[in-house]
Amino acid sequence: MNRIRPAARDDRAFVETGDTLAVRTNADGLFPVTTQCADTGHVLMQAWMNLDALSATLETGEAHYYSRSRQELWHKGATSGQVQTVVEARIDCDQDSLLLIVKQAGDGCCHVGHARCFYRTLPVGASVPEDGSVKLSHSE
Amino acid sequence: MNRIRPAARDDRAFVETGDTLAVRTNADGLFPVTTQCADTGHVLMQAWMNLDALSATLETGEAHYYSRSRQELWHKGATSGQVQTVVEARIDCDQDSLLLIVKQAGDGCCHVGHARCFYRTLPVGASVPEDGSVKLSHSE
Repeated sequence: MNRIRPAARDDRAFVETGDTLAVRTNADGLFPVTTQCADTGHVLMQAWMNLDALSATLETGEAHYYSRSRQELWHKGATSGQVQTVVEARIDCDQDSLLLIVKQAGDGCCHVGHARCFYRTLPVGASVPEDGSVKLSHSE
Repeated sequence: MNRIRPAARDDRAFVETGDTLAVRTNADGLFPVTTQCADTGHVLMQAWMNLDALSATLETGEAHYYSRSRQELWHKGATSGQVQTVVEARIDCDQDSLLLIVKQAGDGCCHVGHARCFYRTLPVGASVPEDGSVKLSHSE
């Protein structure tokens, strides 16, 4: 398998309107990835990739991330069965964030047991309490 | 306006299944935010917040981010008119990533002039070329 190599990012037009991938990575070589379900449109999860994870994702068509806790390449679903088959991969304007649109295998993507990781909502349009705390509501 | 204060994160069950916000921020006090259009379901953009930006977002009901380039609170649309009215705000399982579902004002969210920032696709299911480059396709 070939590895995606970093590309120069000094030309802003090249990055924003060009047709060559030139991902910006952080100090750890990582960039954020948002994963959306092709069937429901729900945003399932947000994780991280390095260039090796992106290479594996594009070549195999299955989502691979970089696990920051385990510090290793993470083939999503390899042990849980929650494989994500990539329908579309999209990069944003300044090429520092990736979007995957996937077919999610199994009951969902979340290790806590929910279909999506974003199973709690925050109150919108209300004052933050004096003590600076915010109450969450569970909502599938 | 009251400010959201950091909450203890030492109890994993509290973070993952509780009903109290306990956001994990990075070394710069930031966390990633994915913003989705309530009308089209498209993921519009990915940006960053600190706790002050989140406080302002929840209290006003309009998306506020933290601009890493300008190093300041960023009320999205304040100059461009591309205001985002928040319909839902969701936090993920380990509380280190936020999802906003918004009504997008104007022609879109992207400073390059597209409706969404993710206007280019990557090839999926093909080998990465020997030279490690990846070609993008423009696709609204």
